[in-house]
Order: sequence, then C-alpha cells, then structure tokens
Amino acid sequence: MVKKISKEKKKGLEVPIPGEQEFVEREMKKVDVWKLKKYICKVKTLGIYAGGKNIIVLNTDEAESHDIYAGYRTEIKTPKQTIIGIVDLSTTLIKPGEIGIYTDFAKEYHLKDGEVVEIVHMDRPASIGYIRKKLDKETLNENEIRTIVQEIMENKLSDAETSAFITATYINGMADSEIIALTNATVASGESLNLGKKPILDKHCIGGVAGNRTTMVVTPIIAAAGLYIPKTSSRAITSAAGTADTMEVLANVTFSMEELREIVLKTKGAIVWGGGMKLAPVDDKLIRIRHPLSLDPEGMLLASILGKKRSVGATHIIVDIPVGRGVKIPYYEKGIELGKHFIRIGKQLGMKVEVLITDGAEPVGNGIGPVLECIDVLHVLNGKGPEDLRHKSILMAGKLLELCGKVEKGAGYSAAENLITSGKALKKFQEIIEAQGGNPRATVDDLPVGKYAYTVKSKVSGSIFHIDNHTISKIARIAGAPKSKGAGVLLHKTRGSRVEVGDSLFTIYAEKEELLDYAIKALEKLEPIEMRKMLLGSMIE
Amino acid sequence: MVKKISKEKKKGLEVPIPGEQEFVEREMKKVDVWKLKKYICKVKTLGIYAGGKNIIVLNTDEAESHDIYAGYRTEIKTPKQTIIGIVDLSTTLIKPGEIGIYTDFAKEYHLKDGEVVEIVHMDRPASIGYIRKKLDKETLNENEIRTIVQEIMENKLSDAETSAFITATYINGMADSEIIALTNATVASGESLNLGKKPILDKHCIGGVAGNRTTMVVTPIIAAAGLYIPKTSSRAITSAAGTADTMEVLANVTFSMEELREIVLKTKGAIVWGGGMKLAPVDDKLIRIRHPLSLDPEGMLLASILGKKRSVGATHIIVDIPVGRGVKIPYYEKGIELGKHFIRIGKQLGMKVEVLITDGAEPVGNGIGPVLECIDVLHVLNGKGPEDLRHKSILMAGKLLELCGKVEKGAGYSAAENLITSGKALKKFQEIIEAQGGNPRATVDDLPVGKYAYTVKSKVSGSIFHIDNHTISKIARIAGAPKSKGAGVLLHKTRGSRVEVGDSLFTIYAEKEELLDYAIKALEKLEPIEMRKMLLGSMIE
Repeated sequence: MVKKISKEKKKGLEVPIPGEQEFVEREMKKVDVWKLKKYICKVKTLGIYAGGKNIIVLNTDEAESHDIYAGYRTEIKTPKQTIIGIVDLSTTLIKPGEIGIYTDFAKEYHLKDGEVVEIVHMDRPASIGYIRKKLDKETLNENEIRTIVQEIMENKLSDAETSAFITATYINGMADSEIIALTNATVASGESLNLGKKPILDKHCIGGVAGNRTTMVVTPIIAAAGLYIPKTSSRAITSAAGTADTMEVLANVTFSMEELREIVLKTKGAIVWGGGMKLAPVDDKLIRIRHPLSLDPEGMLLASILGKKRSVGATHIIVDIPVGRGVKIPYYEKGIELGKHFIRIGKQLGMKVEVLITDGAEPVGNGIGPVLECIDVLHVLNGKGPEDLRHKSILMAGKLLELCGKVEKGAGYSAAENLITSGKALKKFQEIIEAQGGNPRATVDDLPVGKYAYTVKSKVSGSIFHIDNHTISKIARIAGAPKSKGAGVLLHKTRGSRVEVGDSLFTIYAEKEELLDYAIKALEKLEPIEMRKMLLGSMIE
Repeated sequence: MVKKISKEKKKGLEVPIPGEQEFVEREMKKVDVWKLKKYICKVKTLGIYAGGKNIIVLNTDEAESHDIYAGYRTEIKTPKQTIIGIVDLSTTLIKPGEIGIYTDFAKEYHLKDGEVVEIVHMDRPASIGYIRKKLDKETLNENEIRTIVQEIMENKLSDAETSAFITATYINGMADSEIIALTNATVASGESLNLGKKPILDKHCIGGVAGNRTTMVVTPIIAAAGLYIPKTSSRAITSAAGTADTMEVLANVTFSMEELREIVLKTKGAIVWGGGMKLAPVDDKLIRIRHPLSLDPEGMLLASILGKKRSVGATHIIVDIPVGRGVKIPYYEKGIELGKHFIRIGKQLGMKVEVLITDGAEPVGNGIGPVLECIDVLHVLNGKGPEDLRHKSILMAGKLLELCGKVEKGAGYSAAENLITSGKALKKFQEIIEAQGGNPRATVDDLPVGKYAYTVKSKVSGSIFHIDNHTISKIARIAGAPKSKGAGVLLHKTRGSRVEVGDSLFTIYAEKEELLDYAIKALEKLEPIEMRKMLLGSMIE
C-alpha cells in the first residue's frame, strides 16, 4: 500500500525520510554531481584539421578523475559561449590542465592558445532515454522527437546513438504522429523560406534513376504559368549527376535563403542547391548515418522529403515514385502504398500532395553526366526529344497545374505542353539562368562535352532488354562525373531498340584521357546493357 | 518463365547476352571497379595522437575522385602489410599525393614520413548485408555471425554500423544458434588459455552490486580444494571498484596469457585482469557501443560472459544473477528466465552452468572502494564477517564443488566453509598473491585507507529501508575510487538496521582533501540511504 508521509514529518537533513510515492520521482531525477568538481583547462591548439568534427583532447588521468572517458560529450564553457566537444584522450600530448583543440574547431569557435575554459561534465542527453523507449516499441511524442532532433543538431549524440534511433525506427516503424513530429522538427532544425505568397509549388523525385532531370523542365513550365516554384535540389551522392550539379553547368546554384527569396520573387522559379543553405540540416546528419547501411525507414524518408518542402513553404507538391528493378521501390504495389502515405502525411501537414508512379528501371533521357543531361534538358525546352524526359516532365508539370487549381482536371498535360511549344518555358528558363548569374543565351553548342570519347558497338544483333541505372552511373563516375562536368555516358539506344552488329550502343566522354582509360577498363567488369536475341532469330539459328 | 540460353549461343564480347537465370547472380556479384584506378600517396606524419583510432587524412578532391568520402574505410597497402584506415578529408593540410597519418597510427604500423603507400578502395564489408538481414528479422548463420565479428575486429565497420547490428539484436532478439555462433566467434577473436587440465572452474557475477567481491573469496576456496580456477576479472566501468582494481591492492593483475598459465599451473588459482590479455577482444568493442545506451541484448550478454569463460577453458561455471531495485535484472522471474538461458546455451557449448539468483538491491560487504573491499575479503578469509559477503561466497564456492562432482550434492556449503575455518583458503590466497608478485603476508593493517575521512550521522531515529548501489558507488567515485585505491565508503549500517539519532551511518574516505570536499558537497544532492520511521513510532507521533 502506498502511504504518503507529509513533508512536515521529516526531520533528517543529512538523511531524508521519504514517503513511498516519492521513490519513483527520485529515481527519475538523475543528479549530475560531477558538475560540482571544477575542471579548468588552458587551450592548446594542435595545428591540425579534424575534418569538421568537434573533437577535443584531454589528459587521460585528469579526465577520468572527472568521470569523463573517450567518446564522451562534454561542454566547453568560456565567458561567451558553450560548445559541445567529443573527447579523445592522450597521456603524452596533453598535460593535466590542458585541452587540445584542432585547428578547424579553434577557428570555428574563435578559441585561442592559452585561453582558459571550463570543461563541464555533460548531463546524459535526454534523447538517450527516448531512444531507449523507441527501442522498446513505444511511440514517442512530439516533445521527445523534437528533443532527439535538437540534440543531434547540438552534436550531443554519438554516431552509435543516432544509428540506434534510426535502426529502431526502421525495425519498429513510425506512427503518423511521429512522422509529423519529425517533419516539424526537421523544418525547425534549419532556415525557412518565407515568400509571403500562395500557392507555392514543388516537386520531388525519389532517386535512383539516371538522367532523370525533370526538375529543369518542370520548374520553368510552372514559373512560365505564373506560379511560384522555389526548387531546391541536391548534388549527386552515388549517381553521376544531381540536379544541382547539372544546373551548375548553366548558372550558379549556391545561394543563401535571402538570395533565393530575391530570385524567386523576381522570376517566380529557381533551381538551386539545397545544401548551399541551412535547409533541414538535421536531415544531412541522419543521411550520413543512413547511407552506408542503405537504411531508409519509410517514416524518415517522408519526414526528410516533406520537411524540405515545408521549409520552402510549399503548398502543392508532386512526388515521382519510380518503381522497378534496381531502384529503391521494387514494385508497383509498394509504390502505391508509399504514395498513399505521402498524401496522408502531407494532408495532416496542410500540404496537397499528388503522386506519380513511374517506370524507374531504365535511365531517363540520353545523357548521363552534368553537361550531357543539360543538353537533353535544352533539347526538350526547345520542343525536341528525348521523348521519355519530355513526356515525364510535361506529365508532372501538368499534374501540378491541376493540383493547385490553375487548370481544370484533365487539362494539365496540354497546358504544360503548350508552354513548351510556345517557347514560354524556354524563355522562363533563360530568365532563371540570368537571375542565377548564368548566360541566358547559352545553347547546346556552348556546352562542352569531354574531348576524349569512346563508343561501344554491338558485336551481336538482338534487342535491348535492360539498361542498368547503377552501372551506367558508375561508368560515368569513373570517367569523372559529376566533378568533371563534361564527363559521362551518352546512350544511343533505349530499352526495346533493335540492334544490329556494329551499331553504336553508347559513348563514354571524359575530360582527361587517363579517366577515359579507366572507364574503358571498367567495361571489362561491368555489364551496363543486357541484350536478348530476337525470338525469331534464335529459333532459326 | 525462366529459360536458359546456352553460353555457346553468346556472340557478344563487349555486350554479353545472358540467360534470365543469370540475372540474379549478376546482381549479387558486386564488382568494385574503383580498384582499377591506382591511388598512390606519400606518408605525411602529423605529429599528433588520435587516441588509438586508425584515422587517415586524405586530400578532399583527390579522394573524392576515387569515390572515397569522409568516414569511409580504405585499405592502405605497403609491400609488407595492409592496414584499414578511416578517412578524414582536408583541402588545406593534405596535398594531392599525400596521406596524413597520426603519430600513434604511424608508430603502431611503422609508417615513415615519405614512405609510398597505395590507397585501395575497399569492398563494401560483407557484414553490411548480414546486418541488413538481421534488421529484416532473418536469423543469421554461423558464417555470417563470424564475418561480422571478424570485420568489427578489423575495424571495417563504423560505430554506426556496429550500433545497427546491436540494436537489431536487441529488438529482434537472437536465436540460440546465433548466440552460440557469437560465443564461438567471440572466443576466436582473441587468445585462449590451454591448461591441458580438467575440470576448470569459473564464476561470474552480473554487475551492479557495490562491494560484491565474492571472486576473491571463492577463488582461493576452490583452488584450496585442489581444483583449477583461472579467474579473469574486469576493472570498474561505472562502479567504485572492479575485482581487478581490488586485487591490485595486494598483487599485480596484469599478465599475459602465458604468464597466467604459469601461475595457474603452480597455484591452481589466479585473480587477474582480463583486459590485460587479448581475451575475447571483440566484446570490448561491442561494449564500447552498448554502454552509452545501456543496450544489453540478452544474446550478447550470454555470448560475452560465456565467451570469456570458454576462452579460459572453463568446464563448470556458477553464475550469480542479482535481482532487485536498481540492478540490471529487476525481478526474480526475469532472473530465473535468464538463468535457464545460461544453462541451455552453456550445455550446447559443452559447459556445465549453475545459476544462483541473489538479492542485489543493496551493497554486499561493508566497504565500497578497492582498499575497503580488500579489507572485507581478508576478514572473511580470516573467518570473520561481513556476514553477507561470507555467506554468498561460501554458497557459490559450495555449488561449484557440487557442480564438478568434487563433493556430493548438499555437501558443498560445509565443504567450502571448512576450507575457510581451517585456514586453507587464506593460505591459498597468500600463495596466489605471492605468485602474482604481491606481499603474501599483508594484513588489513597494511592496507592504507584514505587519510581524509568524514562520517555521516543520522539526525533521526528509524530503520534503514534501502541503501542505493549506484549512489554509494557515485560517492566513492567522487572521493577518488577506483584510481585512488584508499578512497571509498564504509557502511556502518545495513538494510533493516535500527538507527538512533547520532548513530554513524557511513564514512567517506579520500586520499586528497579536495576530493573529500567534493564528495561531501555531493551529499547535498544525493540520497544514498533511505530511512523509515518505525511503524510504532509514527503511529504515536
């Protein structure tokens, strides 16, 4: 039986007598008594770069006498600031009373040699308890999710701890309420664009499809229709070109949030690099951990994408979900399921989301690599092919026009197409290029592909059965893409094409002969194109 | 329908035509074409210690052109060796063609300034795929578990990847077959003791109970009974003293596996520090990740403990599972469940395991801290108290004697007790101390407790309801334990003791006045002892 003893009845000072009910509270209240023990150090700058990691080096014995061990987080306090550092220990390099600071860390926080700082034993981050709850299959509330995101941003969590959180969300899933909380916390972790306009349109393609540069066609169409579309895009991680890498062939892509605002208010559209501003920065920290394990918990995928859209104030969004062999979503039904989840979460966040399930098994367009993809985009905006890129871009732009009520349902495709054939989309694209500091008059002839080239020809006749996204991207990367803008692969055939002996299949471009040689060598080990003999042919043989 | 096209029908060399069945195989075969691109560097030693981490620094642009990014693992090849390095990037400090190497790393692998090495793009560790399987609730086979352990040992996995593995085993659990495979891989990760004798006895206590130094009583009893007991113990992590810290008051504890063998063959027993030899080293790597999150997947706990026992060749083991408030296992039924799991896995590994469920809510013995705990042990071996330490140690030793068939069932307790009262256990303990380079004639009067002391007295009368393990340990640590051997807490009362106003409750000892002051200050925030007024008293009031 729980019996409460009134506080008045307590007499002990050194040894208090609690009532039973207080036990629970006491166990929750973790007092960090180590803070009572002052730990004062002089800064010793180490003259070396640690690659942006906030590592500090303490004397082993001294740190351990303060209950601080390798890998621990501590606060470093100066009269002006409090910084979080990750502890390395040294018995020889750092004497007691010293704290070793790396050059980049010292620069970032203006720490000077000999400066006196206080090392403060850090409270166990509150997140650890919340992550434990998630491990034990509990649903986290908004405050708990926000705290985890904040503490990741403050570098209070180690990679191992962050990884445990991601792994737990992968295995145990995330409730819609958790996804919404994570989206909001993701937005709050960075800067937001406030255009003061409505509607604001946006688009997103789930990655994995080579050459899929629809953004550079959709954005000018939408802006040409008089609607706002402040598009932020990423650079390539493992592919041969991201939209930001490709747009960079024609214009600058690195802008501050304020600069983006000015561009969009002027031209209605923009195509900039999201990494250039502090847009949903917690997402980058999560992706760094998720990437090596290819860990894509669906809830995190949704929060990542919708968080970035929300950060630019998007009200109407079209999401392209490519399905098929070799891309993230293996088959149609899975795509539908994910699509419905996008629409549901979007709705709860006050955003109208439309989803397009597309065939993602093969590359889109002919070129793979920044300049080559740029050429495809300019061709499409000039009313030409490649047909797949043209069709997909118009489809997406049309759906967006319908979604925000600009045109009636069913009238989107032709409206978007008209903006291309009339030349208005191209004109808008040139305006955007100019606003982003590029040359608006650049044509495909001004875009230099690598001067070293090698064309692969077929030694058999048959038909093309499959062109592999990953393998094509890999060849383009070995040839130098995306850093080397003119490097890449130009496809001469698409899936289903009939091929005769001697037909050109694809050409590899490189800006350095050495890199072309590597790419050719790599062909011995890679099979970017799979062919089948025509059924008729093989029966006759 | 799957149709196989014969290899003879293929004509293409540049573009092969596969049959459908080959698709699966091709997707599995990940060819690392980046290896084709040679990356040769000269070593630039950086004159700084990185705390034992194998970090290398590469030029950002050069590394990225080889598809190598921050946090990646690479191989560093010299004519003599291949080392795994974790990549940091720098645009300023390291020029293209250079590789920055930290002092400790350079020393360990004898790398010299200007030495030419090759950086080899590393294959994605095979473990990543196996960890993904575990995330997706599949059961891993022996080879997969062994590979994960090997790659952790080779530093091929990042903290985030290792954490994902641990988290997945926590959430999804481990099959017995996985636990056995992990135990075997844990043993194989380090050195083993081969005494060439049987039986070999061992004991283990699940941690969390302050002052629980049964090993130092059980080991001499068993050795005095003529049985082999090569006991390896740990140092304190968060407690005030581990068995290794405590034994170190009397003798050396750091020995090589060969030295341990010599000691045990001579005296039958030994009490050494497990960390001093390469005993199940993968366990240390796992614990480093598990510790901050208090992540104790049951399977890993079993593999860790049984792996260490197997490494010393143990055939008969007694495991003490303390249950109760504040320790790892909260209640009796959970203890029974874990105990049965120990016995089952032990059996499958060919080891006889007996389990003792004990009350772990309060400290065992009177002293907390190396010297104070040593004094308790010497008192017990001299036939005196503290009664709880004496009883628990005799119980464990007796069970071990029964388990290996040395005495009949039911005769263990008195047999073990006789070895104490006859003085044989003390004599054996002195032999062990001498074999480990200590002074066998040391008595409690030779053990110096800290000369600064502060006794806490009760300001109320009542009875002691609870003494908190964590809080007592924390006070002892703040006073300097375990590094400061004479520091700690001496309890004058135990649970249930009747206390009058002015009675001494406990004394804090420290070797430095400053540390005693911190500990006294900490008392304001900590409540190590909970008291209740006697029921009768509170009714009268």
